[in-house]
Amino acid sequence: MNDRRNDTRAPVPRDKTNDHTHDAARMRREFLTARTGLPLDHVGSYSFDPGVTAGNIENFIGAAQVPIGLAGPLRINGEHVSEDVYVPLATTEGTLVASYNRGMRILTEAGGVKTTIHERFMQRAPVFHFNDARGARSFAQWIDGNPDGIRAAAETTSSVAKLSHIERYSVGPMLHLRFNYETGDAAGQNMCGKATLAACEWIAANHPGGARYTLSGAMDTDKKHSQLNVLHSRGARVIAEAWIPSSLLKERAGVDAATLFRARLNSFAGSVMAGSANNGMHAANGLAALFIACGQDAANIAESHTAITFVRLEDDGETYYWSITLPALIVATFGGGTQLPTQGECLDILGCRGKGKVGRFIEICAATVLAGEISLASAVVAGDWVESHDRLGRNR
Amino acid sequence: MNDRRNDTRAPVPRDKTNDHTHDAARMRREFLTARTGLPLDHVGSYSFDPGVTAGNIENFIGAAQVPIGLAGPLRINGEHVSEDVYVPLATTEGTLVASYNRGMRILTEAGGVKTTIHERFMQRAPVFHFNDARGARSFAQWIDGNPDGIRAAAETTSSVAKLSHIERYSVGPMLHLRFNYETGDAAGQNMCGKATLAACEWIAANHPGGARYTLSGAMDTDKKHSQLNVLHSRGARVIAEAWIPSSLLKERAGVDAATLFRARLNSFAGSVMAGSANNGMHAANGLAALFIACGQDAANIAESHTAITFVRLEDDGETYYWSITLPALIVATFGGGTQLPTQGECLDILGCRGKGKVGRFIEICAATVLAGEISLASAVVAGDWVESHDRLGRNR
Amino acid sequence: MNDRRNDTRAPVPRDKTNDHTHDAARMRREFLTARTGLPLDHVGSYSFDPGVTAGNIENFIGAAQVPIGLAGPLRINGEHVSEDVYVPLATTEGTLVASYNRGMRILTEAGGVKTTIHERFMQRAPVFHFNDARGARSFAQWIDGNPDGIRAAAETTSSVAKLSHIERYSVGPMLHLRFNYETGDAAGQNMCGKATLAACEWIAANHPGGARYTLSGAMDTDKKHSQLNVLHSRGARVIAEAWIPSSLLKERAGVDAATLFRARLNSFAGSVMAGSANNGMHAANGLAALFIACGQDAANIAESHTAITFVRLEDDGETYYWSITLPALIVATFGGGTQLPTQGECLDILGCRGKGKVGRFIEICAATVLAGEISLASAVVAGDWVESHDRLGRNR
Amino acid sequence: MNDRRNDTRAPVPRDKTNDHTHDAARMRREFLTARTGLPLDHVGSYSFDPGVTAGNIENFIGAAQVPIGLAGPLRINGEHVSEDVYVPLATTEGTLVASYNRGMRILTEAGGVKTTIHERFMQRAPVFHFNDARGARSFAQWIDGNPDGIRAAAETTSSVAKLSHIERYSVGPMLHLRFNYETGDAAGQNMCGKATLAACEWIAANHPGGARYTLSGAMDTDKKHSQLNVLHSRGARVIAEAWIPSSLLKERAGVDAATLFRARLNSFAGSVMAGSANNGMHAANGLAALFIACGQDAANIAESHTAITFVRLEDDGETYYWSITLPALIVATFGGGTQLPTQGECLDILGCRGKGKVGRFIEICAATVLAGEISLASAVVAGDWVESHDRLGRNR
Repeated sequence: MNDRRNDTRAPVPRDKTNDHTHDAARMRREFLTARTGLPLDHVGSYSFDPGVTAGNIENFIGAAQVPIGLAGPLRINGEHVSEDVYVPLATTEGTLVASYNRGMRILTEAGGVKTTIHERFMQRAPVFHFNDARGARSFAQWIDGNPDGIRAAAETTSSVAKLSHIERYSVGPMLHLRFNYETGDAAGQNMCGKATLAACEWIAANHPGGARYTLSGAMDTDKKHSQLNVLHSRGARVIAEAWIPSSLLKERAGVDAATLFRARLNSFAGSVMAGSANNGMHAANGLAALFIACGQDAANIAESHTAITFVRLEDDGETYYWSITLPALIVATFGGGTQLPTQGECLDILGCRGKGKVGRFIEICAATVLAGEISLASAVVAGDWVESHDRLGRNR
Repeated sequence: MNDRRNDTRAPVPRDKTNDHTHDAARMRREFLTARTGLPLDHVGSYSFDPGVTAGNIENFIGAAQVPIGLAGPLRINGEHVSEDVYVPLATTEGTLVASYNRGMRILTEAGGVKTTIHERFMQRAPVFHFNDARGARSFAQWIDGNPDGIRAAAETTSSVAKLSHIERYSVGPMLHLRFNYETGDAAGQNMCGKATLAACEWIAANHPGGARYTLSGAMDTDKKHSQLNVLHSRGARVIAEAWIPSSLLKERAGVDAATLFRARLNSFAGSVMAGSANNGMHAANGLAALFIACGQDAANIAESHTAITFVRLEDDGETYYWSITLPALIVATFGGGTQLPTQGECLDILGCRGKGKVGRFIEICAATVLAGEISLASAVVAGDWVESHDRLGRNR
Repeated sequence: MNDRRNDTRAPVPRDKTNDHTHDAARMRREFLTARTGLPLDHVGSYSFDPGVTAGNIENFIGAAQVPIGLAGPLRINGEHVSEDVYVPLATTEGTLVASYNRGMRILTEAGGVKTTIHERFMQRAPVFHFNDARGARSFAQWIDGNPDGIRAAAETTSSVAKLSHIERYSVGPMLHLRFNYETGDAAGQNMCGKATLAACEWIAANHPGGARYTLSGAMDTDKKHSQLNVLHSRGARVIAEAWIPSSLLKERAGVDAATLFRARLNSFAGSVMAGSANNGMHAANGLAALFIACGQDAANIAESHTAITFVRLEDDGETYYWSITLPALIVATFGGGTQLPTQGECLDILGCRGKGKVGRFIEICAATVLAGEISLASAVVAGDWVESHDRLGRNR
Repeated sequence: MNDRRNDTRAPVPRDKTNDHTHDAARMRREFLTARTGLPLDHVGSYSFDPGVTAGNIENFIGAAQVPIGLAGPLRINGEHVSEDVYVPLATTEGTLVASYNRGMRILTEAGGVKTTIHERFMQRAPVFHFNDARGARSFAQWIDGNPDGIRAAAETTSSVAKLSHIERYSVGPMLHLRFNYETGDAAGQNMCGKATLAACEWIAANHPGGARYTLSGAMDTDKKHSQLNVLHSRGARVIAEAWIPSSLLKERAGVDAATLFRARLNSFAGSVMAGSANNGMHAANGLAALFIACGQDAANIAESHTAITFVRLEDDGETYYWSITLPALIVATFGGGTQLPTQGECLDILGCRGKGKVGRFIEICAATVLAGEISLASAVVAGDWVESHDRLGRNR
């Protein structure tokens, strides 16, 4: 490349032959250094061959190093994991690991977390356009009558993606179709996009008079929380439950079950007024830390942080039943960032790398979230919330 | 510590003297290796002294290495930044950097992005409990009459946090107060918690008959999207705008303004039906990548991904006005993870490290989001969306 | 009855033999008169035999007289009505009839309103309780495997109600089932309740280990707006569309199509921020007036006022496509209040009394709503909104 | 008028001199009769001079007669009413009056309903348009600096409307202002519209460079439920509370407090999933019946049916605290339909006709709603819900 160091609007330099190399990364860091004087030593200190990032990043310059802390053990009584696990959490927020760790101890001592995956699908939702609402309605009927052709077209594009069912939503002269796929151990957004494109092309070719469509009409709802996700799931719908003795809560968190229960009812009312995507505490915290550690797409925190807490003080007045339903947990143990070096190692710590492991990982995510709920809810009520941030956080 | 390698329920080992050392991290990695046989070489390959992570992590074992790609230049015509910037994006999702890069080129060639920070506050929202609704109402009046005492108490706790105003929401026998603070260059959740605790204690001591409260009643709404945030902001409310010639869109993205505009209207209807937190495309993608690169709290994607897109095809039929309003963008250039090695370097690339820089960073975030909107929206309409994922992503 | 006129807490007197008589009504009015001195002459001036109200009211004392105005003609190009209709509207709000009348004129001159019923079901949504989430999931599978038994049990209770399909929603240890029925010309809430009770009893008797349930778990969502209704309809999902020349809008409403279109886009953004159940104007106004005139359940305005407006300025820049989708329009032409004297007459005016008429009535409702949208939207933009209220309303 | 009886598209005939007369009404009924053959005897059987409807209706043809039933007594311990009241309910839905009557008995025997009006304002929300977001932000600051001029302009238009405060919401290049007024005993939508128009005109005349605005930008949110209303009220924000002994519930409704409480928790979860405007039972039923009887605008059921239920089983395990918060109850005792003959009589029954009575009426509405909640919630749980509809409703 010619010297464009003084060109404030130069494009980021690229190596057209192979752009995922140490040299290409260094070239771009030097490009930045020339402009800023920054050495970028840490960004340039990664422990892997840049070739492994092909398919994960463009214009690679190095790596962000996000500290990982270890929490656990956490006892999980799931269907894909039935043991004590240690959980790596990548975060820069002081107290987060300590808080989840405390919650895990409580849950483990209570006998563990029961985890249940209710369903798991990934979606792509094209919208079809017609001259009027009747066109959309006729089309809906035609779609109903042609499940096999649609499925066959969709499933030609991948050996993994299996079309499960298609939701339909009509508005004005349009029909939105929300395709639901099983996607194996992948999160599956891209394979669903590809499969749905093929299905749409088949539809356009076979529907009498053709069909105009856009591959997404905003009902997917990709990288966005939505009430639709609450109802019909996106990724996994998974539920974590625990039955916790009041005496244990009192001992470990300084607050009894009845007090915690009452605070939860109060918070439910606040959550309803706020129109909140989650009537619990902070699912986003544990999930973001797990996602970054384990090579998940952190943007999916948008969807995945959604949750419904359902609690009950049992008739004995002593056992606190606590459940959290995550309707849109989007994770993978294959594809995306899962095979990258540190990310793969963290999945390995959990026994979750590769094929056939996504169920296990989903259950671990859900159980981890529940640990965080219990710990933070207790801290808020017991009054040690601010104090622990003062002690462990940067604000000291 | 004694040998607990065969104890499946051993707590994570800690060094009580100084736990943020290479030795402590290695001890914990060995603890894992003993259980799993994993070497954890990459997790253990970090380029900094673990001492720098004190306040950011507990039970430190190493670092996640998230690939960073460089996008840009992006022309921003803001109030805190008025130049071309190159943006580091940490992600494992193939095509993300390439897509934002394309959007940045279009925006830059269109003359740049205009960015405007409407307001910026951080919140903590305690709930006060009374015997009945009249108690809550009387209390609301008392709060109105005592602004100075409340402010003074809150502001004793920090030299930074300034109490701006208090929102009030009543439900049943409770009153929720949502305290709004200016927090300088910090995100400020913790300083707001501390300040609000002090304010609540002052209230409890001074309100006739005292006051029972919980420091959070779920109306903050911390780490959660909410309609309340859409209305009253959380963190920064920032707007990015651009005026883009149709010819430029056609040339760079293969689709003219009128077609893009029409697709946006269609998507708005889908978004309304879905009950989506964001009627645009994928703000979460660019923000998550910026957050991880720059030491932000990735859990705040929950709030920050919320957005309202407002577009208009100008009367000339040729200029496409595109705006995105981010009502809950939570970022910092001081505190939290911002001082960590790679994170600080990435903030440096943007000229955003440290005090007095948060406005600049907010504007860069908003402009980056707009670049991603334009690129993805065009790709969906032009039909090259799936193809680019096939070419650049792992699914090839 | 003995004299309890001085008893401030006397129960409302009843005639145990036949309580729907002039005498019983008079007895209760005298009971009130004794307490208040009020003659209640107008309330007592009804034109029918109280016997006709058996099944519609208890403790009958007379009738509210709500003024009816006549709007129209309104041209409808529907599938159940294809003609000009005159619409009786019962309201006490000045300008309402005049405003709808103006909108009807515009629509009629534009060639009429095209109406399309996308689907129509009534729902009842019981919730089933289990010990844990796995119990709920197993139950969901059992439900899938027993459609015939469930349907047979549900359909024993009525010759009208036909069970179409059952939606399922899981949360914590519960499974919500939303039963969808065809209900003929009735609104059908009660027949659905009865059918679903029978289905639940059959399920409890046949599901291994029984089943605990509550007949409603709040997902019906009876007499309440919900996002669920937006997605999956409640009552009829009906769409009204019109293609209106700008010149006609300019002539009749003083505002051209481009200006109206732009104002609509602005309002969409406001509606998104507000978290509104309807991004249009005032569907509730026309529907409430029609409901009261025609013997509908006015409480269903809660659900029925929900709407999604989708508009488009056609490429000619001259034709304004305007559609409104009502996803939860709950009406009947049989049962409920439809057979009462004035109510039946109003249904007769529309040609909608009795069996086989509900489709026609649905289409008239939707077309009427669209007329109101166009008239009010124009008035707001043209600036004659306040003036017309001053001229026609009580505030003059 | 010339004979247009065979003209299917004839406009509704009017008497230009005085259209609110028996003759004009008869003329229009004959116009319908000529087209339909219908006698319309009942519609024509109203007991008042049509002149009284001027300002309430246009194209008057007669009246809908909606049956009124009497419920009560209901003990209210409010600030504007502290006595037992009998409540007229106009409805055509069988069992409604009986059900509310049962709830009133329970509440009265429990010692009555405590009612508290938290605040009451009516709104109009214009939107101001600028070239960019900075224009909107500057304008917001200007608005802050000119409260007196704005208030003075608004308050010139009415002796009643008092401007309390102005909320502000920014999106893209627009600023929405939500004007909040005290409106005395009127509901006040029209007086707020007029006052806000005057304020906007003053702003446009005084803001440097003028100001383009639309009198409503959909954030009012008139005749529509919205989350904004939940947060910031529309009309009255009123809370009804009761403390009910379990033994009383058991005796009168066949279900104890603990069982009812548990069912409520279950329903809360269903309500969250559904995205419902009301997590209680059926506020719309009682309100619609009261609204029609008492001359309220039934379209406001859209806003008024919104509610938040907050319940608690007290520590004694015996007392059930039940509250309902209605954040958007829109009612009047002056103006609108309140002065019409039957409507005024019904207000008289409640002691609520005319000036200075609106507080009393608000409290009665809230207490009535609570009665309905308790009765229906009990019926659903006790299992006599379907049975009572079978016995009292039309479906028998």
